[in-house]
Amino acid sequence: MTASTTRRPGGRTARNTAAVFTATVDELADRGFDEISIESIAARAGVHKTTVYRRWGSKTELVRQALAATAQSMIEVPDTGTVGEDLRLLSRAVQATLGSPRGAATTRSVLAGAAASPEIRAMMARFWDTRLAAIAAIIDRAVARGELPAGTEPSGVMHAVAAPLYYRLLVTGEPLTPEDADESAAAALAAARAGVFSRA
Amino acid sequence: MTASTTRRPGGRTARNTAAVFTATVDELADRGFDEISIESIAARAGVHKTTVYRRWGSKTELVRQALAATAQSMIEVPDTGTVGEDLRLLSRAVQATLGSPRGAATTRSVLAGAAASPEIRAMMARFWDTRLAAIAAIIDRAVARGELPAGTEPSGVMHAVAAPLYYRLLVTGEPLTPEDADESAAAALAAARAGVFSRA
Repeated sequence: MTASTTRRPGGRTARNTAAVFTATVDELADRGFDEISIESIAARAGVHKTTVYRRWGSKTELVRQALAATAQSMIEVPDTGTVGEDLRLLSRAVQATLGSPRGAATTRSVLAGAAASPEIRAMMARFWDTRLAAIAAIIDRAVARGELPAGTEPSGVMHAVAAPLYYRLLVTGEPLTPEDADESAAAALAAARAGVFSRA
Repeated sequence: MTASTTRRPGGRTARNTAAVFTATVDELADRGFDEISIESIAARAGVHKTTVYRRWGSKTELVRQALAATAQSMIEVPDTGTVGEDLRLLSRAVQATLGSPRGAATTRSVLAGAAASPEIRAMMARFWDTRLAAIAAIIDRAVARGELPAGTEPSGVMHAVAAPLYYRLLVTGEPLTPEDADESAAAALAAARAGVFSRA
């Protein structure tokens, strides 16, 4: 079915997939994993529930695929020519997501689910792997250009960019501004330049 | 009553206060703000509930004071002579708290409560103010010694130390090691040295 979706990007299957994934993330944000069902997602997407059952089989598999697709679509990996600007744009993208009501609600809902369920924890681990694999290119290019020390760990830099933004959302509860995004990118860059994330 | 506690540090009032605060944080960690009561806290502390009512009046006030006392007692502000070592020890203390089962449970419980209740959000804001005021001395001394740029914001540095540790606990779910604590302190220091947190 995935192959068929790929072959007909503008077709009904692709439109249904997009609608179902959007409804899945919306349901997750509004009500949390435990409260939602294939039926409630199908109703929200305006798709018959048997279509959803046939295609994804279970709520867990549907949520897993919806989150994976979201992780992919959220990553427009910047390639501006300097690592500082690449990290700043990436940080702005994280801030735009976490700073929006829907992004904040989805994040809280998924994290609450992850705390309670090994299945969601496994989904989230995959979500992070997907994001990190795409984003690692930024660091690899920076090392190749001589902007960062050899052996700089992409995951160390990326978590340093994201952590202060999640911290504001989840711990201090302060609003997330573009300036916060720029500051966390600048802090991560300074630490990376100083070799803090270098394992070489 | 607070004055009386101070005057008789080894007396029955002080012992009751310590027992009630410990029971409050334990109840909060095990069951969450909504589920606990003055009665359940008093029972856990082995103190009569009328003693607790007379002294603190309400569950909200009791939780507020217990968290404030915890915030105070958690801060042994390091003063080793170098900002790098001060920040490392501080980061190790945060890691020891968040990395322990009780500390992790209390943190999750309080944050869940804060997301749901303006009263707990106000308590947490006070908690952070108390911690930051005590810890700011580390940065003020570092600026006076010329280790950090003039105008370095203590709160910027402190949040940079803490954010990666909370992020591991709350977002990625990875275990928290002493090495993580040292890395977050080193990253915060490199960023502070580079002037990222300087408003001068």
